[in-house]
Formats: sequence, C-alpha cells, structure tokens
Amino acid sequence: MGTDGLRVAVVGATGAVGVEMLRILEERDFPVGELIALSSPRSAGRSIVFRGEDVTLRELSLDALDGVDVSLSAAGASVAQGFVRAASSAGTVCIDKSSAFRMEPDVPLVIPEVNPEALEPGPTIVAVPNCTTIVALMALAPLHRAAGLRSLVISSYQAVSGAGRDGMRELAEQVAKLHDQVEDLGHPDPASLPIGDVFGKTIAFNVLPRIDAFDEVGSTGEEVKSVLESRKILGLPDLDVAATCVRVPVPVGHSVSVLARFTRAISPEEARDLLGAAPGVELRDDPSRDEYPSPLEAAGRDEILVGRVRRAGNHDDALQLFACGDNLRKGAALNGIQIAERLFGV
Amino acid sequence: MGTDGLRVAVVGATGAVGVEMLRILEERDFPVGELIALSSPRSAGRSIVFRGEDVTLRELSLDALDGVDVSLSAAGASVAQGFVRAASSAGTVCIDKSSAFRMEPDVPLVIPEVNPEALEPGPTIVAVPNCTTIVALMALAPLHRAAGLRSLVISSYQAVSGAGRDGMRELAEQVAKLHDQVEDLGHPDPASLPIGDVFGKTIAFNVLPRIDAFDEVGSTGEEVKSVLESRKILGLPDLDVAATCVRVPVPVGHSVSVLARFTRAISPEEARDLLGAAPGVELRDDPSRDEYPSPLEAAGRDEILVGRVRRAGNHDDALQLFACGDNLRKGAALNGIQIAERLFGV
Repeated sequence: MGTDGLRVAVVGATGAVGVEMLRILEERDFPVGELIALSSPRSAGRSIVFRGEDVTLRELSLDALDGVDVSLSAAGASVAQGFVRAASSAGTVCIDKSSAFRMEPDVPLVIPEVNPEALEPGPTIVAVPNCTTIVALMALAPLHRAAGLRSLVISSYQAVSGAGRDGMRELAEQVAKLHDQVEDLGHPDPASLPIGDVFGKTIAFNVLPRIDAFDEVGSTGEEVKSVLESRKILGLPDLDVAATCVRVPVPVGHSVSVLARFTRAISPEEARDLLGAAPGVELRDDPSRDEYPSPLEAAGRDEILVGRVRRAGNHDDALQLFACGDNLRKGAALNGIQIAERLFGV
Repeated sequence: MGTDGLRVAVVGATGAVGVEMLRILEERDFPVGELIALSSPRSAGRSIVFRGEDVTLRELSLDALDGVDVSLSAAGASVAQGFVRAASSAGTVCIDKSSAFRMEPDVPLVIPEVNPEALEPGPTIVAVPNCTTIVALMALAPLHRAAGLRSLVISSYQAVSGAGRDGMRELAEQVAKLHDQVEDLGHPDPASLPIGDVFGKTIAFNVLPRIDAFDEVGSTGEEVKSVLESRKILGLPDLDVAATCVRVPVPVGHSVSVLARFTRAISPEEARDLLGAAPGVELRDDPSRDEYPSPLEAAGRDEILVGRVRRAGNHDDALQLFACGDNLRKGAALNGIQIAERLFGV
C-alpha cells in the first residue's frame, strides 16, 4: 500500500450491499486513496458522496478497473462472472460477495473470524459466503473449535434485503397497501393480495419457505448454498447439514434457529462462555432478564447477536440456539471489507 | 341431542378464537338449539349476531352454564380453571382450548384426525392442543402411522393472533407507525421503535424467538407445550422433540419447519402419497410448478397446507417439511368444534 492509500473499486455501488460497503469504508477509516464507484449503465454518470466528496459513478468495465488494488464487488453472480477472473489476472484483488466463485476449488471462501487461514496463500480472488451461512457459522465456529460439530439442522428467517433494494421496495409497497387491513387478513381475499416480481407471492404479513430456485430434489438454491458453503468454510466435507430457508417480512437482519450436535458433551454454560469471548459475536442470552436477540436489534450493527442457547432435548452433546445478524453488513459488505483489511495488512 | 338441537355455550365469544367459533358453528350448520354467548364483565350486555339474530352477551358464571350441553371455551387458562371442572361436574361437556387441562391425566388432548380414540370413554372435559402442536401433528401423524416417528426438530413461525386480538392490534399499530420507514430500518434508531404490552419488543418488521415465559433451563412455555403435548397426543412419552418457537409479523397462520426421523426408511414420494390422502391436510408441494405453502394462504381455511417435503441430508429415514395452518381455526376453534361433532354424533 502506498502512502496515499489504496485504489479501491466498489462494484454495484448503488445497491443495498454497495451502499453499506461505502458506509463501512468510511466508518472503519479504510485507507482509500482513490474510490472508483462502479455501477450498471443505468446509474453511470450519477454521483454519490464518499467522505464528503462527490464521486461520479462509472459503468463497470475492465478498463475502469485498470490499476485498481482491490475490487469489492456487491454485484450478482452473472455480473461477477463477467469480470472477476479477468480483473484478477490483471492484478486486482477481487473480493466478491456473489455466489459465482464460492465453490471454485482455487477460490477461498472466507469469514475472517472463522477460517482466516484460508487467506494465507495471498489469493487474488476471495469469495464472501452467503449471508445466512455467515450468521450461522459466526455462532457455531467457536463451539465447533471446542467440541467438534457433527451435524446441523437450520431453519432461517431471512430479511427481504437479501433480495436487494428491489426486495425492500416490494415489501414496503405491499405493506403500504395492506397496513390498514391487518385485522381482515384472517380471511384474506386471494384476488386482492399484492404480488410482486421479486418474491412471487405476497411477502407482506406472510412468510415464504422458498428462496432461490428449486433443484430436482426439492431443495432451494439458498438451502444448497448453506449446506455446501458451511462444509467448505469449516473444512468438514461430510458435515451432516439440513437447512430450510424462509423469507420473512423483515427489512434487514437474517436469523437462524439452529440445532447443533457435537462430537463431545458441551453444556449451555460452556457454550455461552465460548460465545461471550468470540470476536464479532455478542451474547444476548439471559432468560432471567428476558434477554434474547432479534433481527431488528442486529440491523445496522457489526456483531452477530446470539442467544436462546440451551440443551436440545436430553442430549448432552446437542445445543439449540438462535442467532441474528445484519445481512447487508456482516452478511456481505463488512465481511468483504474485513477480508480486504487482512489481505492488505490494514 | 333433542330434536331442537343442543344448548351450546361459547366462552370468550368476543375474542379472536371465539369469533371464529361462532363463524364455524354457522358454516358447518352445527345443531345449535340455543346459543349462550359468554364474555368478560366488560363486554356483557353488548350483543353479537349469530345466524342473523342478535344474541346478548352474558357474563361467564356457573349459573349461565346451567343446562348447557356443551361449552366451547376460547378463554385463557386462568378463566378456564375457574369454571371447567365445576361445569363438567354439573353435566356440561367442556371443550377447552386453554392450556389449563391439557396435561391432566384424566383429560384427553385431542386432534380428531390424529387421536380420535382418546374420545372413546365419553369424556366430560376435552382439551384442545396448542395451535403450533396441531399444525405440526396434522402433517406428521399420517407419516408416523406409516413409519413410526423417532425424533422431531421444529422451528415455528407463529402469527400474532396467537396472542389474541391484542396481538393483532399491536402489530397493526406498529406497522401503521413504521410502514413509511421500511427502507430506514436497516439502521433503526432503537429509541424510535414502538414497543407494546403484548410482545415486549417491536414485532412489526421483526421476529421474536420468545413466546410465553422462560423456564429455568431457558425454554419457553410455548416450546415446552409443543414437546409435552406432541408426546401425549401421539402416545409416545419418550419422543425426542426439540422445538424453537418464534413470533413473526403475520396476522393469522402458524407455520412450522420440521425435520422428522422415523423408525424405517420413508421416501418423499411415499410421504406425499400419505399426506395427499390424509383428511384435513392439503398437499401443496410441486417444486416444478413453484408450489409450496405459506401462512397467508392457510388463513381462513380449514386445511393444514403441507409442502417442501424432501429427504433430510443423506438420511433415508428422515424428512424435512413445511406446514401452515390457520391458528384460530384448525389451531383452535375448528378443532374444538370437530371434537364436539364427534362427541355428539353430529
């Protein structure tokens, strides 16, 4: 890094995750010498404010990435597929939050608190895991290190911003339409329920157990990601994972209800001690004071909130817990910037 | 039953479940000779409409139940404790949806499609299970009969009407206050978030993994009910059940994400065949047509909607599924009236 700081590109700078990236770069005083803010052709030419100065949005292209030290990409998989390999060959370190490269054998998939060792070879492409996987593994990794994970059952409660700004807008529009009919929704008229392009069914006042497309055995893309990414990050290729991923009408903040089995007995007290000492985790778990986490409390925060830690049934080797995290921040933007901090010794 | 029909009392006739009871008695043409509508002192004297006629609400008392054939009670546990034993001794069959008598050894706990045999001795008190338990067991009982349940992991997504009209009102008020700030809720100001008496934290745009009070090991009342009631209804006193119960900002319709292990291999295809033939269940499970259930689709309906049936990991003896049901109807009022229909040969 030169004395003038790094040349940093943010790809997808106007999206829900991109906006958080810019905010977090400011908050953490990341050594940005020059910011290259890249967007779709539609937004190019508009300007955004970064550290009090206007920055003009440019259209994403390899030329625009020329000489860039690090690209933080908040774009989707198809956009990432179009530039990441070429940009990294040209010398730009690409930190990519899309699903495009996560399962590539030569690309580390990294949560810095969980598997920082994967950053050792000095990679030129690093993938940021799926937001749900990050929330779950931030809570589980400290327990895994101590007691060895054997199996996981996960049910998620995922915010609409996981589908970006369009998802936020769709929820807002539907809630605006229905908010004065809440008491009538016990007998809804199906014809009057709003349906948008993003979620396929009404998301306001509803929960939808389908995120991403179905595969041939009836799992969704989101569920398959949770399983495969957890195995890769933890280095447990045979980990027994069952996931059900569900969209809920929450703007920001993903939650997971987890049942974890370990290779040895582990008490809730030991688990709480481990979680209380884990970086990036905030324990919110005191039933006597009615203390437990919720996603609205995690929104806008860096920490993953963990609570409801308790023994699963009569099994002394199994725990249940509930974890909540900001899917745009630790679930995406913050995790990417933490990777950049490690790679560039910030 | 006389030729003029039964004398039927509805206790808690103005509450969320009571209103559904009256509606369902009309819908199913239940042989009501005389309706005695009972309420709290606050509502007594007002009138409601039943089958097109005004019925004056009376205050609940043993005198008011004198000569009543069947009492359908939608009141809470403390109210039920005050009258059910005495009324049943005086000859009224009491069908009670509260938690007061569910675990009493002499009181059957009944879902008519699941354990109708428990009604055989002609009981004078019958308890209606918890709404979440009903939704889960309606989906699981057909599979259990075929393959023998061995263990359950349940995470719930429970509607605010589970906390009655006050819960509905609290959600409606909070959504009215917040609905034009959805995009700001990524960075909420905790001081500006509305908090009501029913849920303790903001329920609008949030999920709360705490329903009912915590016990000394950190489980909630709702979770303990799910475990104990499932065992009693299925006659499996040692069934291994782990439950996490979560409130979601849905007006009506409880959902459960379930992982079930059986004593023998059972394929998703076999499970779908069993569920498709099960009374009171509607299979909504065709990934190729993007078909899956959601609670807003279950609201106002009698059937429990079941979908997302699939193998859990690589286990041929374990399935995952998602079920949704109207917590006020099959989860409470309808289940009670179905019990009355069986007891009185309707």
